[in-house]
Amino acid sequence: QPSATTDIAKAFSAFYYQAFDSNRNQLLSLYRDLSTLSWEGEQFIGANNIVAKLVGLPFQRVVHKVATVDAQPANPSAPTLIVLVTGQLLIDDETNPQHFSETFQLVQEGSNFWIYNSIFRLNYG
Amino acid sequence: QPSATTDIAKAFSAFYYQAFDSNRNQLLSLYRDLSTLSWEGEQFIGANNIVAKLVGLPFQRVVHKVATVDAQPANPSAPTLIVLVTGQLLIDDETNPQHFSETFQLVQEGSNFWIYNSIFRLNYG
Repeated sequence: QPSATTDIAKAFSAFYYQAFDSNRNQLLSLYRDLSTLSWEGEQFIGANNIVAKLVGLPFQRVVHKVATVDAQPANPSAPTLIVLVTGQLLIDDETNPQHFSETFQLVQEGSNFWIYNSIFRLNYG
Repeated sequence: QPSATTDIAKAFSAFYYQAFDSNRNQLLSLYRDLSTLSWEGEQFIGANNIVAKLVGLPFQRVVHKVATVDAQPANPSAPTLIVLVTGQLLIDDETNPQHFSETFQLVQEGSNFWIYNSIFRLNYG
């Protein structure tokens, strides 16, 4: 079901970046002890470590503008999704947006999804 | 083992893009019937369909220049990796490289890895 998969991934992305841009502490519920974040090459494991990193990022305001969201089932026998998001983000008073790419593996639990893997990179030009 | 994981992903990426840039037919051995490719939003399932798409891309020459490779174990109980590659590519006689992002899920089989998921996007600016 490519379309259901994509719909879930788009709803997730909208929620994730809205929470990221308004109050990064809200992201805690999306991670578990097994979760891993790679942020610009640095790795963090576990919900608390991941959210501490995100909350501590050295900017006050950020706005993500999502350009593309693609998703695929990640396992023939488990409810997991692989997602690639690309887009732009604008930090504080900057006027030049930066391109970013972020990969997620989402794991379904009841009617919700949590983040097992996440890899974030800016695309430098 | 973040470093072993990253080493595998870097070796895979080097092999993948070298094969892509020299003869896309060589990529067939990296896919299986279960493999999925999302290419600029279009989805292809199965090794033959995927490689037919890649071989049919409308350019004669392409050179990928990988900038970053990040990887994480994708499953606590199976030998799979999630990989995000970012970089630039140059097509035919173009002189302006385009940024790309590509996500893979790799599955280990003996001492090799095959591609279960792959999602490719250009990062437009």
